[in-house]
Amino acid sequence: MSSKLNVGVIGLGRLGSLYVEYLQYQIPGANVIAVADADAERASELAKKNSVAHSFSNHGDMLDLKDLDAVVIISPTSTHRDIVVDAAAAGKMIFCEKPLSISLDDALVMKKAIKKNNVFFHMGFMRRFDRGYSAAMKRIRAGEIGKPIVFKATSKDPFRPSLEYADPKKSGGLLLDMGIHDFDLARWFMGEVAEIYSVGNVLAYPEMETINDIDNAVLTLKFESGTIGTADMTRSGIYGYDIRTEIMGTEGTIQIGYLRETPITIMKKEGISHDTVPYFMERFEESYVIQLKDFIEKAIAEKEPSITIEDGERALLGAHAATHSLHQKLPVVIDNEAMEFTVKTEIEDKEIAG
Amino acid sequence: MSSKLNVGVIGLGRLGSLYVEYLQYQIPGANVIAVADADAERASELAKKNSVAHSFSNHGDMLDLKDLDAVVIISPTSTHRDIVVDAAAAGKMIFCEKPLSISLDDALVMKKAIKKNNVFFHMGFMRRFDRGYSAAMKRIRAGEIGKPIVFKATSKDPFRPSLEYADPKKSGGLLLDMGIHDFDLARWFMGEVAEIYSVGNVLAYPEMETINDIDNAVLTLKFESGTIGTADMTRSGIYGYDIRTEIMGTEGTIQIGYLRETPITIMKKEGISHDTVPYFMERFEESYVIQLKDFIEKAIAEKEPSITIEDGERALLGAHAATHSLHQKLPVVIDNEAMEFTVKTEIEDKEIAG
Amino acid sequence: MSSKLNVGVIGLGRLGSLYVEYLQYQIPGANVIAVADADAERASELAKKNSVAHSFSNHGDMLDLKDLDAVVIISPTSTHRDIVVDAAAAGKMIFCEKPLSISLDDALVMKKAIKKNNVFFHMGFMRRFDRGYSAAMKRIRAGEIGKPIVFKATSKDPFRPSLEYADPKKSGGLLLDMGIHDFDLARWFMGEVAEIYSVGNVLAYPEMETINDIDNAVLTLKFESGTIGTADMTRSGIYGYDIRTEIMGTEGTIQIGYLRETPITIMKKEGISHDTVPYFMERFEESYVIQLKDFIEKAIAEKEPSITIEDGERALLGAHAATHSLHQKLPVVIDNEAMEFTVKTEIEDKEIAG
Amino acid sequence: MSSKLNVGVIGLGRLGSLYVEYLQYQIPGANVIAVADADAERASELAKKNSVAHSFSNHGDMLDLKDLDAVVIISPTSTHRDIVVDAAAAGKMIFCEKPLSISLDDALVMKKAIKKNNVFFHMGFMRRFDRGYSAAMKRIRAGEIGKPIVFKATSKDPFRPSLEYADPKKSGGLLLDMGIHDFDLARWFMGEVAEIYSVGNVLAYPEMETINDIDNAVLTLKFESGTIGTADMTRSGIYGYDIRTEIMGTEGTIQIGYLRETPITIMKKEGISHDTVPYFMERFEESYVIQLKDFIEKAIAEKEPSITIEDGERALLGAHAATHSLHQKLPVVIDNEAMEFTVKTEIEDKEIAG
Repeated sequence: MSSKLNVGVIGLGRLGSLYVEYLQYQIPGANVIAVADADAERASELAKKNSVAHSFSNHGDMLDLKDLDAVVIISPTSTHRDIVVDAAAAGKMIFCEKPLSISLDDALVMKKAIKKNNVFFHMGFMRRFDRGYSAAMKRIRAGEIGKPIVFKATSKDPFRPSLEYADPKKSGGLLLDMGIHDFDLARWFMGEVAEIYSVGNVLAYPEMETINDIDNAVLTLKFESGTIGTADMTRSGIYGYDIRTEIMGTEGTIQIGYLRETPITIMKKEGISHDTVPYFMERFEESYVIQLKDFIEKAIAEKEPSITIEDGERALLGAHAATHSLHQKLPVVIDNEAMEFTVKTEIEDKEIAG
Repeated sequence: MSSKLNVGVIGLGRLGSLYVEYLQYQIPGANVIAVADADAERASELAKKNSVAHSFSNHGDMLDLKDLDAVVIISPTSTHRDIVVDAAAAGKMIFCEKPLSISLDDALVMKKAIKKNNVFFHMGFMRRFDRGYSAAMKRIRAGEIGKPIVFKATSKDPFRPSLEYADPKKSGGLLLDMGIHDFDLARWFMGEVAEIYSVGNVLAYPEMETINDIDNAVLTLKFESGTIGTADMTRSGIYGYDIRTEIMGTEGTIQIGYLRETPITIMKKEGISHDTVPYFMERFEESYVIQLKDFIEKAIAEKEPSITIEDGERALLGAHAATHSLHQKLPVVIDNEAMEFTVKTEIEDKEIAG
Repeated sequence: MSSKLNVGVIGLGRLGSLYVEYLQYQIPGANVIAVADADAERASELAKKNSVAHSFSNHGDMLDLKDLDAVVIISPTSTHRDIVVDAAAAGKMIFCEKPLSISLDDALVMKKAIKKNNVFFHMGFMRRFDRGYSAAMKRIRAGEIGKPIVFKATSKDPFRPSLEYADPKKSGGLLLDMGIHDFDLARWFMGEVAEIYSVGNVLAYPEMETINDIDNAVLTLKFESGTIGTADMTRSGIYGYDIRTEIMGTEGTIQIGYLRETPITIMKKEGISHDTVPYFMERFEESYVIQLKDFIEKAIAEKEPSITIEDGERALLGAHAATHSLHQKLPVVIDNEAMEFTVKTEIEDKEIAG
Repeated sequence: MSSKLNVGVIGLGRLGSLYVEYLQYQIPGANVIAVADADAERASELAKKNSVAHSFSNHGDMLDLKDLDAVVIISPTSTHRDIVVDAAAAGKMIFCEKPLSISLDDALVMKKAIKKNNVFFHMGFMRRFDRGYSAAMKRIRAGEIGKPIVFKATSKDPFRPSLEYADPKKSGGLLLDMGIHDFDLARWFMGEVAEIYSVGNVLAYPEMETINDIDNAVLTLKFESGTIGTADMTRSGIYGYDIRTEIMGTEGTIQIGYLRETPITIMKKEGISHDTVPYFMERFEESYVIQLKDFIEKAIAEKEPSITIEDGERALLGAHAATHSLHQKLPVVIDNEAMEFTVKTEIEDKEIAG
């Protein structure tokens, strides 16, 4: 492999198109030589605009390119399985955007393909590369807040996505689509999750009922270490894109998150005000670039990926356990070795928690 | 009754002593004519210092005072039942500090005594009188955030109380002792609670195990209206006394809470910093005074009390349900009509929440 | 003198009436035995309401009271001179609200009377007793920001006072009426002022021209120590009462000030907002009480007053120098020994500052 | 001219090297075809790394390139005059980094060359393109704060530059080197400056005296419109890079500025803290890119530049007037038509300001 990685980008939606630009212009180690999208014209135009040699209407043709080193997969989640399996078989390095898949079965198939072909696989969870989250982890590892004991996460989208997008059959539903980030962060900061209980309802958008999903949820988490946590997710943030996480430790607490787009404050009779973060690109654009850079650098250096396919699989497991709890209306216990979960129906009746 | 209410204060601990001063000096409608405490000398000294005519070592003698109009009960929770029952029998107006009692049986006895004797009873929940909480309620009622749909509460004490105080037999345990406020606020903002699930553990102070209680907990709440909520409580806030509540509505969110004692900001190489709220009196002293004033004014005007004994009883019911859930490790469903709760053990297995 | 100080309050406007209550109810060492106001009825009513034995329509009669230990003067500034001179002659302890007087000549007369009769005199500058300002001073003295080198002050009133009140003949004008606090704080934090340059204009309320005063001003300050500063004052704060001070040191900066009445934050599509501090009592009420308490305690203990008549005189000197600079449109140099100032008209023409 | 502008970058220091990358990778309309630096090797390496066709050790050779459309000048200020004059003579479009020059005479020579050759000239003042400053201007123009009446600016560097860099002969001294931005912003928000008074001293770094400059200053400003302002500048910000501006209007105030690098908050016993902005690139990197993009777009579209050479000249005039005031220790009056200033020595002795 040369000092530059020849990359192909699969899936050219809004984020995919940006990925092409990030990789082509802002990441020295990457050289985008191919793009693919079901919309062939879109692929061709984007290739032309960004000096990309090849464009395709399917990933299979792209994988035939001899000098292609790596693929960046940002296509619809339902297509991840086949692309990953094929790319692994072709021996390409892989970056796959979250979530890994909708079903746990698909995730297992992908994991096996990766193992069998022994290819580099980076699971995309850009929040870990955010300046705030990475600084928080650094400080926690440095012992600044002692031992982490309580995890709190808030995820608010400013409005609901289209019903087509939100449909649980495609998106996995609120607890997977929005929650996948929180389940990843929960594991990253606290270790494996042992139990989840979910409560949720259709509270803001009655039309969510037509797709059999909820728009608001709150969860409790128990971790294997005995520590605990909570998460709340909403499609109806209304005031903006609000992603906050709080890690309570035995010696202090660290909060991650902010809520302004521009650093201006308006002071009027009615009160003091500032603007909000409109949506995820205003909050996390930099993180996407840093993550892609990390993928390219680790791949070139033949180091371990920062986030593995197991990370993707376990976050998915959490999302499924949470969804199951929501449906069955009881806590769900996770067996992290077997990668399975079961509903809890028996009273334990201890005098006290543990 | 004269234009001033002749008041007796029962229980002269730190807060009780302050109540004497508030009533005597800062509340025009009150005239403290008696104080009582098991420590007769303490009662006598406090009476002398604050121009209080009578001092007693038990509430019974105080209740014999003919010109006594009202009692303010701030004695240990375990004594509330007998004092309330006796005061009601004596026809005195009553202010009773939270929690109403430790046991639900005691609460019922007290409620019956109040009803039977038809006396004025104000349940002490000072947070409702806090500038922040009352302003929030005003704005919510004015429709500023639309319909409230998610309730979030955080309660952090900066350190654990003495094991003697914290002992669940006396304090009711973390979920009652700290949580009683949150259960009251939850009802106040969202209506009756329909289901609670509690997760907790000993995470900061291993010695809590000796008294069979936990030091950290997170909860999910379902309200009868279908709305949802979460609460987290900790004895190990470490950095200060941090009480925050967030009400998410269909048109916006309102946050209540703050974290500074003095309005100064220190800017140094190491970062920008400000101090924290040390403990509850620095945060809520004003609320105590406003609440006592409200009690006196409503009592004199023969209006309904702002907070009733049912409010006290229902908050207690929530705390017990939460504690039961913690012990039985399953969600607990509340029957608000019967004032009872039961553990949920059956899978509902709907395809979607509701 | 008994362990309690018998106090007479002179001047029963809004603040004066509150002073009576603070002294009578919240300050253990004080016993208000007399009140005086030109409006005899007002004095009589206030006396009755607050259990004050005597009421008068002039300070002379009050000073005849044999058991009167101290007077608290909160009457119009134009009356301060005669009351202070008479009270000093009567050997009474004195608390005098800021500003000491309008004219420097009056201040000198008062100072001489105090010295001659050797009476206790506390100059009222309540900001020094504010939690924020006193905490800042404590931290600065502890060396937290190194040596203070730049002083910055901002004073904003939310609206202009009545033209009658604002009239420079009565109020001394913007730079005295509002600035007196800043000149006191400047001296307190940085030492004596050596030079002032003022710039100002009528920018918000054209009607200010009818009383020959301005509504906005900015100033530069040079201190005797060589350090520098700036202050801005406005009658047209509009959004609230905003008092902020910043002390820059060689090792850090400390900011004092805040801008909210209640601890609630409203988050809506239009932005994140909180309320503001409406006016001075919402910001400084506590400081008034703490200051009165300090006056009473120091007086009883026969200690030196925390703020002296010289402090009052020097802040006044600063205000006059600033006003002179504004009128003459050139910097004004202060001779702190002679308590005089002169306009600077000669170019110094050094290559560099010093 | 093609749809892309062929650009040459002159001066390849830290910022100059970044400009090459911004123009080459992030700005679609630009095509960097040449770089120049006195250090020929540096130029050659940078050209190679960024696919730049030509590299030179002087600007003259670069200007000979036939297909060169525009030059971006980021070389030392002392070289600006000759480069601008030569580039104008060669008919190239010009972007010139602030300050325009050190001396006013040089500025005049450059302005004449631009006029004579009628070339496009964009004066670099990146703050105008900052998200905060541009949003503030937009809101002010929309009338949100009424008429602007008071301007307040704060500029703090976290530490002093090298004495070699800071030397007034090269940098123009504190009031030019740091102040040039504030003089530009003052004009942008408030209109032309009519009078400046400067106060400053060596307060943090005694070694500044060896280069005959100060490290801290405060200024008052009068604008031609009668409005007023203040600015403070420091080389000893210590706690970080703190750039704040406040515009007070007749109906509200707008503040621009912020003080954190990452969105994390650490809550410990000692207090609540967050980090600071280390230096200017962490604060303004985005603004540099947006400004270059604006230059390229306006140049291609043959529109007027957003910031003209007159803007550069007038900001310089303000800086010189401020420096003169500092040295002569009296206010300096600016004649904006003649582009001159004079020291004020005569008392105006009006009764009131205007």
